[in-house]
Amino acid sequence: MPRLVMKFGGTSVATVDRIRNVARHVAREVRAGYEVAVVVSAMSGKTNELVAWCKEASPLYAQSEYDAVVASGEQVTSGLLAIVLNEMGLKARSWQGWQIPIETSDQHGSARIQTIDGARLDAGFKRGEVAVIAGFQGIHPETGRLTTLGRGGSDTSAVAIAAAIGAERCDIYTDVDGVYTTDPRVEPDARRLSKISFEEMLEMASLGSKVLQIRSVEFAGKYKVPLRVLSSFTPWDIDINEEAKSGTLITFEEDETMEQAVVSGIAFNRDEAKISVLGVPDKPGIAYHILGAVADANIEVDVIIQNLSKDGKTDFSFTVNRNEYARTVDLLKAKVLPSLGATDIVGDTKICKVSIVGIGMRSHVGVASKMFRVLSEEGINIQMISTSEIKTSVVIDEKYMELAVRALHKAFDLDQPAA
Amino acid sequence: MPRLVMKFGGTSVATVDRIRNVARHVAREVRAGYEVAVVVSAMSGKTNELVAWCKEASPLYAQSEYDAVVASGEQVTSGLLAIVLNEMGLKARSWQGWQIPIETSDQHGSARIQTIDGARLDAGFKRGEVAVIAGFQGIHPETGRLTTLGRGGSDTSAVAIAAAIGAERCDIYTDVDGVYTTDPRVEPDARRLSKISFEEMLEMASLGSKVLQIRSVEFAGKYKVPLRVLSSFTPWDIDINEEAKSGTLITFEEDETMEQAVVSGIAFNRDEAKISVLGVPDKPGIAYHILGAVADANIEVDVIIQNLSKDGKTDFSFTVNRNEYARTVDLLKAKVLPSLGATDIVGDTKICKVSIVGIGMRSHVGVASKMFRVLSEEGINIQMISTSEIKTSVVIDEKYMELAVRALHKAFDLDQPAA
Repeated sequence: MPRLVMKFGGTSVATVDRIRNVARHVAREVRAGYEVAVVVSAMSGKTNELVAWCKEASPLYAQSEYDAVVASGEQVTSGLLAIVLNEMGLKARSWQGWQIPIETSDQHGSARIQTIDGARLDAGFKRGEVAVIAGFQGIHPETGRLTTLGRGGSDTSAVAIAAAIGAERCDIYTDVDGVYTTDPRVEPDARRLSKISFEEMLEMASLGSKVLQIRSVEFAGKYKVPLRVLSSFTPWDIDINEEAKSGTLITFEEDETMEQAVVSGIAFNRDEAKISVLGVPDKPGIAYHILGAVADANIEVDVIIQNLSKDGKTDFSFTVNRNEYARTVDLLKAKVLPSLGATDIVGDTKICKVSIVGIGMRSHVGVASKMFRVLSEEGINIQMISTSEIKTSVVIDEKYMELAVRALHKAFDLDQPAA
Repeated sequence: MPRLVMKFGGTSVATVDRIRNVARHVAREVRAGYEVAVVVSAMSGKTNELVAWCKEASPLYAQSEYDAVVASGEQVTSGLLAIVLNEMGLKARSWQGWQIPIETSDQHGSARIQTIDGARLDAGFKRGEVAVIAGFQGIHPETGRLTTLGRGGSDTSAVAIAAAIGAERCDIYTDVDGVYTTDPRVEPDARRLSKISFEEMLEMASLGSKVLQIRSVEFAGKYKVPLRVLSSFTPWDIDINEEAKSGTLITFEEDETMEQAVVSGIAFNRDEAKISVLGVPDKPGIAYHILGAVADANIEVDVIIQNLSKDGKTDFSFTVNRNEYARTVDLLKAKVLPSLGATDIVGDTKICKVSIVGIGMRSHVGVASKMFRVLSEEGINIQMISTSEIKTSVVIDEKYMELAVRALHKAFDLDQPAA
């Protein structure tokens, strides 16, 4: 029998009534002939409550104890869903991470899944049981201690389990009904994409679309698990497998319909800040000199630009997370400015990054220049540009963000139904 | 190093602040030179919340899933206490039942502890760690599933762990500061007993004193673990090991001070109801005929009396839990009355049982008759009498309960400090 993993997040299981709704979605797939593993998060709000207790106990809490406390949230949901499924006449049992086991590294609080033994789950499927799995948690094999995967880790659990049991697909049920061409709160004409390629989704996730955790998308890529994003609030009795009706399939097949759209979506974020080192002597090693110091301080750098050199001097710019802005500037002033002989460090926290994403960009020329033209027509100045094979990102003044997103959305016909 | 088990109930760990207070009690014992295992219950109210969710999920919930849900409460407390102990500069780690492991039977919801492997706890003590153990829970070795021991099971966990690690004593911290000569809400002159024998405690617990779960006392008896009942709300910085100051030691040594008091305490309960089968033909097998049917329906019987026979007929009376009264009467009327040829079934739910308990009764004659005299002087009619080596129980009209308790408390000098 084909296998399916279904994952439900915290808002989808926030009350026993909502858990009942989840059970109806599960029952539909069982009736459709799947062996189903359901991965659940903690009831909405519970994880926050547990985290607050840990912090109240000590701001310097041991991550291993934090994991023991916080993993209890998913344990509760898994048991409750199993009870509801039983009541609906389905065989089901709950599985904690350590019972399967899902073995992880020992980085408590942000552990990485290492191996999942599917044998016990297989035996459960043979007994006709739905496997109800507590997401977000695992066990470190050497210490035997509970671990958690960090926020959003249930998505990663679901994908890893799908790979381990050879599931046909992993359906991620959330509070939005799919991946959109852009955020509908910014562009009301944004459309749900019924399909998106894995690579596009990876770019969308990394560029600021919050629908899926980037780690779960990476995992899906590594193990070639097709994903689908769906809303748990869609009626449970529609034929959810009819693509047009619900959700977004994240696929590894690049079929013709996909090629037709050059740009699939517009991503954006305003979490970044720009920093420029001015008047840097243009000699080998300056990028390493500057960014090495930043990396040593565990600060992640995103867009990086080195300007053309003039009179043996150049300017070097990059973006970091806005929370790291002050720390980065202080660090550069203390450690890099004197030794490098640069003129000054300047920065700007009022920026945003807007990106167009689409695998069609591979085979179409002029997509980036069309983006630049559209922005120029709106009078928006581009401060930095960064490109990859399937996306082009620009850094612009934060106040133009909505304008840029809407203009690009329209210019690339994203408000039109796919041909 | 000597070892000590300390157990804290739900009200003692109801908030992070109270958990901090618990940690101070633990730190005191560590400083006193003990290797300490702490057993904790779920935060007060949490178990009820979890149970309510299970019932909401389905009134017919599977006990195995109930266990997965409910065991999470103790998991949270164990992690939080470990965090607080760490903050106080003590090495500590949390242990779930399955991590030790505490192996139980598979009677989910009321599992019985079968074996506890102390090896991992030993290794923890060698590393200088306080072991913070989630009470109430275990694992069934064959299925690998979580089990719980039933309400009050954390006391049983504590005693069983004390036996497994060879602890010198098991201290049960609760919201009362010891075992009293009787319930202070009924007799304000009731005194805390600084010592009580194990057998007396067993009688007190079974007769209605709610300080300790009877199963934990039985367990303590089986494994010869001395118990002490203490209040977690006593100041944590007094010398708690000075017996006179706090708590009640439940001991296996019967020393001289104990012999001096003929009666150690007055227990009572009003949870029972009396049922009489009238006009039963007095022939062999009637007790079995009546009580066999009751036992088959899983109804527990307490006091049993068979009256003197008269004209070949007798009356047969016994008590059951008040909740089972109606069911038992119905059962007897349907199944026993016709086949037995008895005249009638009558009953009374407005009764109570009052008992005097004391190992001194072994070596003193006339204790029971003194009890009967005291009650007679108060005009209290005795309906049933039941005796054992160290207790005498009477069933009387419920309305005389307080009067009987106070009169007996005074008559046996329980309001006077021990000589």
